Amino acid sequence: MARRIPEVVIKRLPVYLRVLNDLVRKDVEIISSAELAHHTGFSSEQIRKDLAYFGAFGTRGVGYNTRTLSEKIKGILGLDREVPVVLVGAGNLGTALARYSMNKHEDVRIVAVFDKDWDKIGKKIEDVEIRPMEDLEEVVKETGAKMAIIAVPAVAAQEVASKLEKAGIEAILNFSPAKLSVGEGVYLQNIDLTIELQSLAFYTSNNEG
Amino acid sequence: MARRIPEVVIKRLPVYLRVLNDLVRKDVEIISSAELAHHTGFSSEQIRKDLAYFGAFGTRGVGYNTRTLSEKIKGILGLDREVPVVLVGAGNLGTALARYSMNKHEDVRIVAVFDKDWDKIGKKIEDVEIRPMEDLEEVVKETGAKMAIIAVPAVAAQEVASKLEKAGIEAILNFSPAKLSVGEGVYLQNIDLTIELQSLAFYTSNNEG
Repeated sequence: MARRIPEVVIKRLPVYLRVLNDLVRKDVEIISSAELAHHTGFSSEQIRKDLAYFGAFGTRGVGYNTRTLSEKIKGILGLDREVPVVLVGAGNLGTALARYSMNKHEDVRIVAVFDKDWDKIGKKIEDVEIRPMEDLEEVVKETGAKMAIIAVPAVAAQEVASKLEKAGIEAILNFSPAKLSVGEGVYLQNIDLTIELQSLAFYTSNNEG
Repeated sequence: MARRIPEVVIKRLPVYLRVLNDLVRKDVEIISSAELAHHTGFSSEQIRKDLAYFGAFGTRGVGYNTRTLSEKIKGILGLDREVPVVLVGAGNLGTALARYSMNKHEDVRIVAVFDKDWDKIGKKIEDVEIRPMEDLEEVVKETGAKMAIIAVPAVAAQEVASKLEKAGIEAILNFSPAKLSVGEGVYLQNIDLTIELQSLAFYTSNNEG
């Protein structure tokens, strides 16, 4: 089923989840799609359509049970348990991502960090030791990690992606500006900060557009 | 014109630009849309369609002049001069983004960093001093910055966004997980790392989907 649901729908699920979890914490039991729309910024029609991909969870004229819907979305995303992630690249960005993840104690957590620089190996980011790339397969097996983050320079990124794939990683978030090639069994998502910034420039009054 | 061109088209322009600049450096003068497709991973049809938004730049049966097209795209995006960006939030992520930007010497550069924490103010990231929020309007005016990055915690993000808008910022890249509200004159782009990671989990074999 995974591949048939539009990516934009999948991207909205964590937003619903965040709002629902807030409501559960505030002991709100039921929420209408109109209220969910208000909190998320998406239309109620959009929300109903999105949730219909996974079955009908609301009661007509009443709304959604916040706890039930939250649990359902967690299940859909695979967030009903802690999700271990390995990070490759302990440079500025990688270190920041690792600290960010480790301090937030979210369900998705960076549990291992790798680098090829022997000056970094053995040092710690928070309480996680930076390990050599040679340990990758073993650590992926030990932790059961299916997800990885690439935060290495563009020239090294393809080699890292291939190693991750070989180690059994199924989904990669790539922060390097390289165009990576992976097998069909691996889902690849790119976040290219240079492209984000360059495209943002279009929306200022400094361009010809 | 800016608002009528789909965001996905604008997002592809920096990818074309990166490939074209590589080719210019390698003294390649002409490139066909098929070759551009090969280098960027987008289809030649897509590329021709994208570039048609801004006028016809290619010569039928020959291709595009790499230097001309590169200059044209730079002009469209407003990257034909250095683009100054201000960053608010000198935490882990903000510091990493600042270092990343300052070391890459790209056209888009973080020229000023702000924080409200007096323990950080006065310290430097690379050669840029961290300044108090009180200096924001003055610095935006001095540097001519139209773009800003928000890398503060969610609770502080809306206040920062409003201050940026008041100071004359026209485009914001928001890394906080807050849903921000800005006026029509401000373009807002969100990058939410938690959502990226949570939605990525869907594409592994650990979910019910």
